[in-house]
Amino acid sequence: MSERNRSVPSVGMVGGGQLARMTHQAGIALGVDFRVLATSATDSAARVSGDVHLGDDRGLADLAAFAKSCDVLTFDHEHVPEPVLRELEREGATLRPGRAALRYAQDKLRMRTRAEELGVPCPRWRAVTTPEHVEALAAETGWPVVLKAARGGYDGKGVWMVDSPEAAAETVRRAAEAGVPLLVEERVDFVRELAVQVARSPYGQLAVYPVVETVQRDGICHEVIAPAPDLDDEKATRAQELAIELAHALDVVGMLAVELFETPAGVVVNELAMRPHNSGHWTIDGARTSQFEQHLRAVLDLPLGSPRSTAPFTVMANVLGGADPDVYNRYFHVMARDPELKVHFYGKEVRPGRKIGHVTVAGTDHRDLLARARDAAAYLKGDPQ
Amino acid sequence: MSERNRSVPSVGMVGGGQLARMTHQAGIALGVDFRVLATSATDSAARVSGDVHLGDDRGLADLAAFAKSCDVLTFDHEHVPEPVLRELEREGATLRPGRAALRYAQDKLRMRTRAEELGVPCPRWRAVTTPEHVEALAAETGWPVVLKAARGGYDGKGVWMVDSPEAAAETVRRAAEAGVPLLVEERVDFVRELAVQVARSPYGQLAVYPVVETVQRDGICHEVIAPAPDLDDEKATRAQELAIELAHALDVVGMLAVELFETPAGVVVNELAMRPHNSGHWTIDGARTSQFEQHLRAVLDLPLGSPRSTAPFTVMANVLGGADPDVYNRYFHVMARDPELKVHFYGKEVRPGRKIGHVTVAGTDHRDLLARARDAAAYLKGDPQ
Repeated sequence: MSERNRSVPSVGMVGGGQLARMTHQAGIALGVDFRVLATSATDSAARVSGDVHLGDDRGLADLAAFAKSCDVLTFDHEHVPEPVLRELEREGATLRPGRAALRYAQDKLRMRTRAEELGVPCPRWRAVTTPEHVEALAAETGWPVVLKAARGGYDGKGVWMVDSPEAAAETVRRAAEAGVPLLVEERVDFVRELAVQVARSPYGQLAVYPVVETVQRDGICHEVIAPAPDLDDEKATRAQELAIELAHALDVVGMLAVELFETPAGVVVNELAMRPHNSGHWTIDGARTSQFEQHLRAVLDLPLGSPRSTAPFTVMANVLGGADPDVYNRYFHVMARDPELKVHFYGKEVRPGRKIGHVTVAGTDHRDLLARARDAAAYLKGDPQ
Repeated sequence: MSERNRSVPSVGMVGGGQLARMTHQAGIALGVDFRVLATSATDSAARVSGDVHLGDDRGLADLAAFAKSCDVLTFDHEHVPEPVLRELEREGATLRPGRAALRYAQDKLRMRTRAEELGVPCPRWRAVTTPEHVEALAAETGWPVVLKAARGGYDGKGVWMVDSPEAAAETVRRAAEAGVPLLVEERVDFVRELAVQVARSPYGQLAVYPVVETVQRDGICHEVIAPAPDLDDEKATRAQELAIELAHALDVVGMLAVELFETPAGVVVNELAMRPHNSGHWTIDGARTSQFEQHLRAVLDLPLGSPRSTAPFTVMANVLGGADPDVYNRYFHVMARDPELKVHFYGKEVRPGRKIGHVTVAGTDHRDLLARARDAAAYLKGDPQ
């Protein structure tokens, strides 16, 4: 649309996925001028946004043109190559987070190196260029170990659990062929997985959300319980402190998600993301300020909103695509069964295993909430009941 | 955008105001195919919606064309003339609410006549074609009395408080010149004003929201306190029952707002609206299901969501335009001062006295919440502090 309100800033989000879609929802309330650079008119955010620019969301030409129309550029994903980010900054674009921060989200070798310098607890790890590097770590930690692509991946994967020198050699060989840099990490013997989100503004203001439990199956986040039930205060505080330390030290602007392992001894940092994150979708229905509104407030350097929970517990379950794509037809049952359930759909083409939406339910008994969210997500997927 | 998901229904909203804008936000989560018929690309909803049709939102030609692209047509306002609605229904459009219901929202004479037949408590009233009709009511109730345009109005007004036969005669004369039908009502000696909302689906399901207090000044709703503090149970239940009776009897589909006067003896119905309503904006931040999501669920005949409040009290204050249109610049102060505050802006051109947004705050002490919401709204307007 043309003739926008001149007194409000324009925020451009690079990438048209569900994170941009939900950020657009938050931008409507704030009344800011939100636009999206999407690769296709059928992208999740492109279906619902009033100001969609179509182009290559990883290439300099389209990004530079998009940046010219925006006061601030932010990101739905981490896939813009560092040289492109560098050139955009050189041309005067305001990237939030900036290139210097994003490279830690884009490259796990850099992230681990920097985290270690900062004294952040990490799994034992080392860079891998030969199978011997993997064997050296395994000699300390035992097999299996976890091989990770520092950037990208191959065969659609970026993480491989390997349990022998032979398997390690095969993965190292194939990664080398694909030009994918690797690192190896110990397999942490964790109690459960946690995540914590913090927002940081250019002014330096911080707002940290409650620590949540994330339930992963087959490498996919299935459910999030906010806050993590029965987490001891010391571990919760430590996790929040780590997120704050990392946000400061890496100069993050916007939302930072830190995924952690809880072990008997404490918490260990697994992964970082510098954008709204799946572990924070619960905040739309369960926190005073959603992660999407908070991300916009942070990248616009507005004062941050309260990250307070509005219910004792909120549980989010991802809805994955199943064999039957007619998800809407299944709304009737889940909505009739649970009037408290919040349904979020992303308008994406339904493909088996793809994240196509999520459901949320809030209340006091986290076991009951988890059961209800799981049931609804399974029904919406089309699983036999 | 083209190539939409074929398995989801399309809902068209007639009118591009803030109600359509906030309905679009709700439609994004539901993943339905939401589109707007707006008169200008700068209309509140047109600025943010992915599927905007521009045209005359009161004329048959553009409405008929718009209806052809929609499974269900619903309304941001009550201004589509009845003959146009009739012709749209004749051509097969699905209007929700339908013409038969809408005429009670469009014509206060019809509404009063029908409400009286139903035994709904109303102010004493009569139809007015001569000044003597006004005097006859005033002879029963005393002056002043309230003259109302049954439809439309003149000089931008539809309600006149008149305190003498001379003032009545002048208003009747000017209304006749403007072709505006009138009715006269007693001025109800009320304790305060209340409102209650109910959603009704074609299936007949109902969901009724808590009764709220609305604070009006100069004929404009300034604040809403949800639920109405210290309202006795009998009156609250009676107000909810009246809303349910009216929704059934008038065959409303979607949201029905009933504005009432609280008197020492009970509650009296003032006005009706068959759409999302200003008295329900608090539900975005204060109820499990917002009125906008509920309206969509009702018009799509989906099972309705829980209308439960998520906080003991939620207070909404409208933000009116002031002399200085740079509202965004004032965000910094109100957000820094009150991180719990939710800001909703409508992207409308700022004109003095125009509703340009609202703020909401939720908690336990309704007096404190009202003070905070009022302060924020006044500051955003630009009033001297």
